[in-house]
Amino acid sequence: MTVNNELESSIRQIGEELARLSGGQSPTLFERRWWSQAAINLAMHNLDFKTRLFRFIDVLPSVTDDQRVVTLAQEYFGSMAAQAFGLGWGLKALAATGVGARLSGHAIRAQVEQMARTFIAGSSAGDATPVLKHLWSEGKAWSVDLLGEATISDQEADRYRDRCLQALETLASAVQSWGRMPLLEQDHTGAVPRVQLSLKISALSPHLDPIDPEGSFESVAQRLRPIVDAAMRAPASLIFDMEQAETKALLMMIFTRLFMEPAYRTFAHAGLAIQAYHRATTQDIETMLTWVRQRGTPVTLRLVKGAYWDSDTIRYRQRGWPVPLFEDKSETDANYEALARKLLEASSVIRPAFGTHNLRTLAYIEAVAGQLGLSPSTWEYQMIFGMAEPFQEAVLRRGRRLRLYTPVGELLPGMAYLVRRLLENTSNESFLRKEFVESQSLATLLAPPAAVPPKRHVAASSGFRNEPLRDFSAAESRAAMQVAIDEVKGQLGKTWRSVAGGLTLSGPLMPSYNPSRPEEIVGIVHTAGAADVEAGVRRAEQVWPAWRAMPAERRVEIVRAAAALMRSRREAFAAWEVLECGKPWREADADVAEAIDFLEFYGAEWLRLSEPRRLGQEPGELNHRLLEPRGITAVIAPWNFPLAIPTGMVSAALVTGNPVLFKPSERSPIIGQLLAEILMDAGVPDGLLLCLPGGPEVGRVLVRHPAIVTIAFTGSKNVGLGLLKETSTVAPGQRMVKRVIAEMGGKNAIIIDETADLDEAVAGVIASSTGYSGQKCSACSRAIVHASVYDLFLKRLQEAVASLRVGNPEDPGMQVGPVIDERAQATILDYIKIGNQEARVLVEGRVTQPGWYVGPTVFVDVPATARIAQEEIFGPVLAVMKAESFDEALTLANSTEYALTGGVYSRSPANLDLARERFDVGNLYLNRPITGALVNRQPFGGHRLSGVGTKAGGEDYLMQFVVTRIVSEQTLRRGFAPAE
Amino acid sequence: MTVNNELESSIRQIGEELARLSGGQSPTLFERRWWSQAAINLAMHNLDFKTRLFRFIDVLPSVTDDQRVVTLAQEYFGSMAAQAFGLGWGLKALAATGVGARLSGHAIRAQVEQMARTFIAGSSAGDATPVLKHLWSEGKAWSVDLLGEATISDQEADRYRDRCLQALETLASAVQSWGRMPLLEQDHTGAVPRVQLSLKISALSPHLDPIDPEGSFESVAQRLRPIVDAAMRAPASLIFDMEQAETKALLMMIFTRLFMEPAYRTFAHAGLAIQAYHRATTQDIETMLTWVRQRGTPVTLRLVKGAYWDSDTIRYRQRGWPVPLFEDKSETDANYEALARKLLEASSVIRPAFGTHNLRTLAYIEAVAGQLGLSPSTWEYQMIFGMAEPFQEAVLRRGRRLRLYTPVGELLPGMAYLVRRLLENTSNESFLRKEFVESQSLATLLAPPAAVPPKRHVAASSGFRNEPLRDFSAAESRAAMQVAIDEVKGQLGKTWRSVAGGLTLSGPLMPSYNPSRPEEIVGIVHTAGAADVEAGVRRAEQVWPAWRAMPAERRVEIVRAAAALMRSRREAFAAWEVLECGKPWREADADVAEAIDFLEFYGAEWLRLSEPRRLGQEPGELNHRLLEPRGITAVIAPWNFPLAIPTGMVSAALVTGNPVLFKPSERSPIIGQLLAEILMDAGVPDGLLLCLPGGPEVGRVLVRHPAIVTIAFTGSKNVGLGLLKETSTVAPGQRMVKRVIAEMGGKNAIIIDETADLDEAVAGVIASSTGYSGQKCSACSRAIVHASVYDLFLKRLQEAVASLRVGNPEDPGMQVGPVIDERAQATILDYIKIGNQEARVLVEGRVTQPGWYVGPTVFVDVPATARIAQEEIFGPVLAVMKAESFDEALTLANSTEYALTGGVYSRSPANLDLARERFDVGNLYLNRPITGALVNRQPFGGHRLSGVGTKAGGEDYLMQFVVTRIVSEQTLRRGFAPAE
Repeated sequence: MTVNNELESSIRQIGEELARLSGGQSPTLFERRWWSQAAINLAMHNLDFKTRLFRFIDVLPSVTDDQRVVTLAQEYFGSMAAQAFGLGWGLKALAATGVGARLSGHAIRAQVEQMARTFIAGSSAGDATPVLKHLWSEGKAWSVDLLGEATISDQEADRYRDRCLQALETLASAVQSWGRMPLLEQDHTGAVPRVQLSLKISALSPHLDPIDPEGSFESVAQRLRPIVDAAMRAPASLIFDMEQAETKALLMMIFTRLFMEPAYRTFAHAGLAIQAYHRATTQDIETMLTWVRQRGTPVTLRLVKGAYWDSDTIRYRQRGWPVPLFEDKSETDANYEALARKLLEASSVIRPAFGTHNLRTLAYIEAVAGQLGLSPSTWEYQMIFGMAEPFQEAVLRRGRRLRLYTPVGELLPGMAYLVRRLLENTSNESFLRKEFVESQSLATLLAPPAAVPPKRHVAASSGFRNEPLRDFSAAESRAAMQVAIDEVKGQLGKTWRSVAGGLTLSGPLMPSYNPSRPEEIVGIVHTAGAADVEAGVRRAEQVWPAWRAMPAERRVEIVRAAAALMRSRREAFAAWEVLECGKPWREADADVAEAIDFLEFYGAEWLRLSEPRRLGQEPGELNHRLLEPRGITAVIAPWNFPLAIPTGMVSAALVTGNPVLFKPSERSPIIGQLLAEILMDAGVPDGLLLCLPGGPEVGRVLVRHPAIVTIAFTGSKNVGLGLLKETSTVAPGQRMVKRVIAEMGGKNAIIIDETADLDEAVAGVIASSTGYSGQKCSACSRAIVHASVYDLFLKRLQEAVASLRVGNPEDPGMQVGPVIDERAQATILDYIKIGNQEARVLVEGRVTQPGWYVGPTVFVDVPATARIAQEEIFGPVLAVMKAESFDEALTLANSTEYALTGGVYSRSPANLDLARERFDVGNLYLNRPITGALVNRQPFGGHRLSGVGTKAGGEDYLMQFVVTRIVSEQTLRRGFAPAE
Repeated sequence: MTVNNELESSIRQIGEELARLSGGQSPTLFERRWWSQAAINLAMHNLDFKTRLFRFIDVLPSVTDDQRVVTLAQEYFGSMAAQAFGLGWGLKALAATGVGARLSGHAIRAQVEQMARTFIAGSSAGDATPVLKHLWSEGKAWSVDLLGEATISDQEADRYRDRCLQALETLASAVQSWGRMPLLEQDHTGAVPRVQLSLKISALSPHLDPIDPEGSFESVAQRLRPIVDAAMRAPASLIFDMEQAETKALLMMIFTRLFMEPAYRTFAHAGLAIQAYHRATTQDIETMLTWVRQRGTPVTLRLVKGAYWDSDTIRYRQRGWPVPLFEDKSETDANYEALARKLLEASSVIRPAFGTHNLRTLAYIEAVAGQLGLSPSTWEYQMIFGMAEPFQEAVLRRGRRLRLYTPVGELLPGMAYLVRRLLENTSNESFLRKEFVESQSLATLLAPPAAVPPKRHVAASSGFRNEPLRDFSAAESRAAMQVAIDEVKGQLGKTWRSVAGGLTLSGPLMPSYNPSRPEEIVGIVHTAGAADVEAGVRRAEQVWPAWRAMPAERRVEIVRAAAALMRSRREAFAAWEVLECGKPWREADADVAEAIDFLEFYGAEWLRLSEPRRLGQEPGELNHRLLEPRGITAVIAPWNFPLAIPTGMVSAALVTGNPVLFKPSERSPIIGQLLAEILMDAGVPDGLLLCLPGGPEVGRVLVRHPAIVTIAFTGSKNVGLGLLKETSTVAPGQRMVKRVIAEMGGKNAIIIDETADLDEAVAGVIASSTGYSGQKCSACSRAIVHASVYDLFLKRLQEAVASLRVGNPEDPGMQVGPVIDERAQATILDYIKIGNQEARVLVEGRVTQPGWYVGPTVFVDVPATARIAQEEIFGPVLAVMKAESFDEALTLANSTEYALTGGVYSRSPANLDLARERFDVGNLYLNRPITGALVNRQPFGGHRLSGVGTKAGGEDYLMQFVVTRIVSEQTLRRGFAPAE
């Protein structure tokens, strides 16, 4: 018998014994004869119903009006009523009261609360004490987890800290009178406190962000230290829960750094959760073991499978990042076993704790511990309050230390937890489901995790993939960005050579300044005069024929080469944006990624479109659609997406075969310069793309020139409308009617209804309104909030906005940078003055440091007709309005002359449908921020007075730069046509 | 043994005997050791090469320059040179002369001429006489067929008549001295003349058109009578060849009518070909037998398989007409046998003649004749000169009368004939190919024609099919149209009720006149005043919400219902167009068909487009593209396609969900009225479509109204550009930037290069320039002709234009009707005056009858800068220009401010490619007329100053009436997203 066979045999034996010890019981969720049993059962067999059910459970506690609960139930289950109600879920009892019995909000709520109580021990530590005491009396230790909303402000972080302190005090006091439980109070390293608190570190700061480890540490540590102090006094154990994958390294850093501080280095009851679903966990454990040996005092390492698999996987895939988790449940199970052995082997320096509801895993740990000859006091099992009761029973009977992870909190913030537990129980891969619902054989359940053949991921058929944003949770990403910023700083102030097809530009020199440090010249460019435009047109006319005659594939190669160059100089571009435009790191990085997207997308699109398309299938004729470049194109670009927007406009014109005269904004001429250079480097022929920096006067000459037939403009409404008017006259000899593609302004609203998830809504409104200081045409400048959540929303918003860090974006911890220049600052400050007259100020940010800063400012109770509710401000100023109904909210939202972006936070299917139908904007976002449209996935652009033309980054965009020709050939000659 | 088995056994026996008698010979084409053997062999195995080869052979004789022959050969075979030249085709001998041997035009031409001489007995009757005499001496009778170009003028028809007369005289005189051949000179009905002429009836008139049987008869008969007179004198037989399917009934009518005329009723040597591939031939033979019994003098019925299968099938399919021919060769073979028996059985009143190269068919006829106990003199076989020599030999040896169909003519016009023969020989279904190339077994070859399972035709996936034009060769189609015209005439002059959503229009009454009879009032309508536009807008605003909220499917149902109604009232609509707009029947019918197309196509398109389209496939998000109506739309329509164009614009706006204010042209208000009525009848709600007749002042009020956001206009360049300018200003409170879709003018050119098929080119230029009197924006108003064919082109053009019939289009025999009104007539006549100053007049049509007629007029040697070469005339005036090269021709073609349609007649692949690349027009047509764009197959519209907007009848058209909204939902809630 090999070692392995011996171990497996031992696992089977122990597993069978544990199964016997679990004695035919069933977990609560699957056992009790309440409505949830039927509903959960249906959810396990009908994924659509499961989604509706869990979403309904999720939204329920936030709705205070019982009648609204009823309509929501109808919205969620309307089309599945027969199935849902056939099971009598929530209603059977009521229906029995007679014909005409109606849905009752109260009854529905009661059912869900009953379900929640399965998993949540009480609304507060005090409230939960009797439950905890009962557990103790049954021989079960516990770890209290204080459920809470997401923390989006310093005040909320403070409140979470205070709740932790309060709980420690309450619990420490309560447990003093409890009877002794030797198994629970002593392990191989010494005494084990009766009290254990699991901490959600992200709740201790609104600024926890891996892009800024230092700032995050400071923010968390200042609130954590009093908690550790209290735990040391109590005494109590403190365990850091693990959260989303992006924060793993950050939490490990905070843990190790804090508990090496002299005051806490000897604290023996700190612990950290370790998620086995991470591919990198072996390495993490090595790191921890090295660290703990250095520290000299043991810590608890709680090995769990990991509870964020679905959301982490989805988010990473959505972002195009490699998923750092095992894709398959059995890989995680196998990893768990390997890690469990690792922890047991290291038990001389740590306290191993094993969170699992898997019989095989339990048996594995038992068997390995047996092999290693460890005393049962060396490790403990952790299971979740309300789950896997039969296995709780089994390990207790086997004389093992068991601790129940026990949530405590209000129902509303507890829902996220409840839904996670329900998902866990009902997942296809849930061990509990397999054993207690599907009744799989013990042999199957105890078999080792199956090896999984590697999966091949097939790229989408279109071939286009968005360029992933940088993952700044990776230290190397942060370092590269920092290096780039330092390098750019070394190049500031130089005078750049023109990229104008050999023309010597005749306009004055123009400096570009750093908005964060207005005295700092970023660079100096030559500007174009009117004669230069004329010369540029002549140059373009010379080189056009060769460019238009070039095969489509070759032009596509060139824009793709530009994308590749941009990719290779990515941090440099982003760094220039930080310095020239005051963009925060992530915004700057996203702008470069979007520029790459435009190049790749328009390249791919042109390959698709330029292929002659046959029309009709009739014999004897061949009809083909061909696309031809319209002619010389002027691109007049803005500064707020200084690379992405001009890259999109310029590359669209170029790839379709047109020459381009490109005027970058006078507020971001260096980035414009860099774009022109990279396109030339990529192979755009000389003279085909002329970069003509300058102010509005250059733009005016460009748009009036009769040889310029297409004008791609992004900027303000007034300039855009003027341009449309100006270009509508056909001059004598003018070849084409000019086409204007104008992306103009917005006055974008987010609606928050009474069912909204406020964690998300407040964060979304803040991200949308203060991102890049509100200087996006897509930015949110109005929030329209349902009356029933208005006050609550304002409270959280106020605290969250006040918590924002405003400052020089070279520091990645700054959330809001400066506005672009003095003129912009003055305009925005004027609007803030106007706002103070028109409405009530909720937050008025005041920034005293030099640089063109404007503190994020919020006005509330804003009348619909107020100027700050109607006019585009282009700064971090938000107008909040109250609506009595969703209908009124939509009317308010649609009541400006713009129609660009809009958003809705709602968990009401009916309201989301209404928004889909009636929210009249070009880009509508549901339950997410309203900026950050991605090429191809969210083609961008508005209507009404927000824009003219098809959406940027969409399938129709390139068609604006071409004329369509249909060539129809009669193929019948002398009575015969080619065979088809 | 059943009767059938007995017959089959007899067929096999006879077939084997005939095969023996054919004695191992091979047909000339397959036998001789010349280049064609290899080329033909390759063509039989490579369809692409076959196309190139036959097309090259086709174009060859029209190219007089030897060097051009060489470049053409390179154009045709360039990419297949290895294969072609590897076979040494045409070059082997030359290549043998040494390395560097070059292609020689002379050598290539010599090869093809040699091939042609296989099938053509001589260039004239005189030239062919020795060959015919030799045939006679071998015991073979003959039927001379005078090859010629297509007849497109009266002069050409006269010349064909004269050639026939000349040939009869020459041949009658020649044969007098030949030796007696009893078998050939006597049949069961009496003496058989030595001379037989096969007549191509379509060559006897440029006006042979089934839409006008009377006119066609008159035109043909006046030239046919002298020929019959000569044949009676000669003596000679005259056989009518059959041609395209559309003319079958007409030719039968001409035959039976002429030969019942007293002077010709007793002519015993008339004959008619009968094509077995027609499904209706059994009925046709019955008709002929009935007729011949009535006549009392026998006629020859020559049964052939039919030589137009490919082109007839392609043309009928292309037009969406049911193909009247058997689809499968074996069905035709089976029908041939049935018909052959029928003719043999009727031989008491006719002279059966059997044209066949099929061994089985020969044996079948022998066997049946045997069954019937007929004397061999009763029938004759006809084979083609140069084909199937082994079978010629076999029937001769069996003592049967054989006649060879023997073409006589120049190589150039003979090419069509040669290509047809080559196709026949090389077809997969050719009996000769099967026997002599594929060497199929005698048993297979003699088997009865296989039964064919019926084929199912699958509709194209899009579901859209163009509405077929009426087939006016069908008597019932002509009758229905005549009835409709008579009915419309009964309704002239009435005052029509407004279709304006209940508004009482406040403008004056407006009469509409018949341009063919200017004193005739077609109808009277109420017109709209400025206040009516305002009221109409308010009405539209009221009813819009319900319309836009209507499911897409329902709106599509409504436009499809309108299509169905239009289909059911099709002749009535066309008749109104004849009366109100002076449209000839076919043009009027095509306009109604196009209107139906627009309704069906935009309906189908909207079903496709209105479906939310998901963008991206990333998890955790759902991005959908939704389309919404822009808003109130003004349609300002022209009169020249009085139903189709407004139907397209109105239905596009309606189906996408917009209300429409529709101003029909003041020159065709009644058709506009009919359109509005039919849409209301189909279910468009009251007030959603308002018909507001009136002049330009109504249009001006419409386009200026701030609530009107989309303007669909078709009309002149000046009005269109004015409209663009006028709508570019955004008025205070205006909701949207107005969108203008303007289809404007054209100054369209057709290029005729030195390789063009002039039969097609002259006819195409005339059809394109004089169709509806040139009153189409797509009309040809310039012909640019290569110098080397310029004089020849002008000669044919002059004669053909002079032959056009101008007159009231109520008479379907009129080819050119009036122009729309007095103003139009005056403008066009002014241009004719200008033309007389600027250029040389080739034809100047003068029309004296009342009505606004302008005779088709052609100017030649027109300078590129002449006003008649630059300005849109919108009448039947053509400017012809000479070009020294194709390059110059393209430059000339592109040298106006318009870019709408254009055409090229060329058989040079390189020139066609150049045109594809450089002929800068919206719709380019190769080797076909340049008007008559079909919905979906040739989406229509131009650029430069010809139009703004996407093409009508194309996939992008509807997008102009909508705004695009992207709805992006974050689907991840509480860490879970719905399964996808």
